[in-house]
Amino acid sequence: MGHRQTGDGQAAFIAIDWGTSSFRAWLMAADGTPLAERRGEEGMRHCATAGFETVFRRHIAALGGEGLPTIICGMAGARQGWREAPYLETPTRLDALHAGAVRVDIDGDVRILPGVAQASSAEPDVMRGEETQILGSIEPGFTGLVCIPGTHSKWVVIEDGAITAFTTYMTGELFALVAEQSVVSLALDKEVGATPDSQAFSAGLGTAESGDAALTSSLFRIRSAMLLGFANKGDGAARLSGLLIGTEMADALRRYGRQKPVRLIATGSLAALYEAALAHAGFISTTADAELASRRGLARVALALWNKGS
Amino acid sequence: MGHRQTGDGQAAFIAIDWGTSSFRAWLMAADGTPLAERRGEEGMRHCATAGFETVFRRHIAALGGEGLPTIICGMAGARQGWREAPYLETPTRLDALHAGAVRVDIDGDVRILPGVAQASSAEPDVMRGEETQILGSIEPGFTGLVCIPGTHSKWVVIEDGAITAFTTYMTGELFALVAEQSVVSLALDKEVGATPDSQAFSAGLGTAESGDAALTSSLFRIRSAMLLGFANKGDGAARLSGLLIGTEMADALRRYGRQKPVRLIATGSLAALYEAALAHAGFISTTADAELASRRGLARVALALWNKGS
Repeated sequence: MGHRQTGDGQAAFIAIDWGTSSFRAWLMAADGTPLAERRGEEGMRHCATAGFETVFRRHIAALGGEGLPTIICGMAGARQGWREAPYLETPTRLDALHAGAVRVDIDGDVRILPGVAQASSAEPDVMRGEETQILGSIEPGFTGLVCIPGTHSKWVVIEDGAITAFTTYMTGELFALVAEQSVVSLALDKEVGATPDSQAFSAGLGTAESGDAALTSSLFRIRSAMLLGFANKGDGAARLSGLLIGTEMADALRRYGRQKPVRLIATGSLAALYEAALAHAGFISTTADAELASRRGLARVALALWNKGS
Repeated sequence: MGHRQTGDGQAAFIAIDWGTSSFRAWLMAADGTPLAERRGEEGMRHCATAGFETVFRRHIAALGGEGLPTIICGMAGARQGWREAPYLETPTRLDALHAGAVRVDIDGDVRILPGVAQASSAEPDVMRGEETQILGSIEPGFTGLVCIPGTHSKWVVIEDGAITAFTTYMTGELFALVAEQSVVSLALDKEVGATPDSQAFSAGLGTAESGDAALTSSLFRIRSAMLLGFANKGDGAARLSGLLIGTEMADALRRYGRQKPVRLIATGSLAALYEAALAHAGFISTTADAELASRRGLARVALALWNKGS
């Protein structure tokens, strides 16, 4: 039952990024080169009914990866996931993530990585999956900020390779709810998304960063501006996006100032919007690809777990 | 076809509060005493298909009020309403509202009151219906603030009986979207609402007023606090309500300080929550009943329109 080979690569392990609504798996060489890939929509939500093991076995078989050691990050380790991997608490070194992995009760060596918790009653916060993306996209002794936009955007403080504090913003989730279901939906053209160079996006960023209005009133003004002829529907999504992303920027500026370098972990149009927003707020940032970050982080963990001598 | 009489009251006019999702009509004596009432859910949204005139005629017939002069406030005067009543622009005197009423093209004297717009490109805002509630609940020369909580809460600056500026907050609409459809719904017990004396409500107010965290992060922390054992589901709605109402309070404090008296126009549990929030923020407030406010405002307009000599 020899494992699939591609070119010079001998399959050594399986890496899986198992989120709330997505599943991605790679057949990996020992040096972290991906040899084959599977993608699906069988995230945690789907697996609650379909069963995690069934989904896991089908994808592993399709990759020809039965019996290989497997490392998993993301919501599969949540309490409602496949097997709970208890949170590591801040401060936590990224190069010690692998030590917190828990084994799944199944044949073979299948491990799920822990998330990270900020167990502070004043600012409680949690992440699952982002810690692995961070591990995969920073240098070992990195000090600075990491920004990971999405449904629940994360801003993470890294000191010499350790997560010391972080904050989650419901940016993507609120964008979807407000754009699709609130009165603001009447002031948006659903066909026209936000673009990083649009005036409406910049104006939204500026309003949020100025602190001159509460977010809950700025959101309503998207609708009022259209009713009163100050704005058109084509600008609505850009304004909304600017207000919500600008809220993150303003909070990060207040907490950290502009001194620390920012590593942005994002892809595509979201990366472009955040690059523009970071520049608008005066941050110095570099961008790392989000998917590459997950795969590289999983590879680093695999190396630590199974190739200690090499 | 004599009009209905109750006790000493001779029916003189009809007053209608026609909102987005509700319809209320009263048969009124000349002195503003209500003689009979109709309530329904045929708001603007319903009437877009059912037809405003059909709904109107059915309720007027049931009141025995055919042919009486009729004054209407609310969304029936919106562009998508029965007949558009163009906004009056701030500053606008409340005792001149009646002069902006437009007549509906129908037999008899049926008029719809205008809304009020703040036609500023920096802070555009609109109201329809609240101006009538304000007219019905303040003294003619009132100077101070009016707070009208709801789906779209209003804070209105009144100077010597004129609306000079106002701000809308999407408080009620965001509460419903976040409580029912976001990740925060997992941290709420749907059976347990917010109560004004709960510690979680006060804590939410305090967080919002301190300005120490962006709203979009405070909302997510409701979920994190539950996951990490710092909070239970029974407190979720109170915390969410405190954060959103506290956002209004913080913005009002920043804009106006605590010096001006606040007239709260609200009813029931919402009135109790806002009374507690206003006190928490250090405002001095008095409460006027919301429904009474609409009816009294409509009566004042009717008096100005049809009883000038009396």
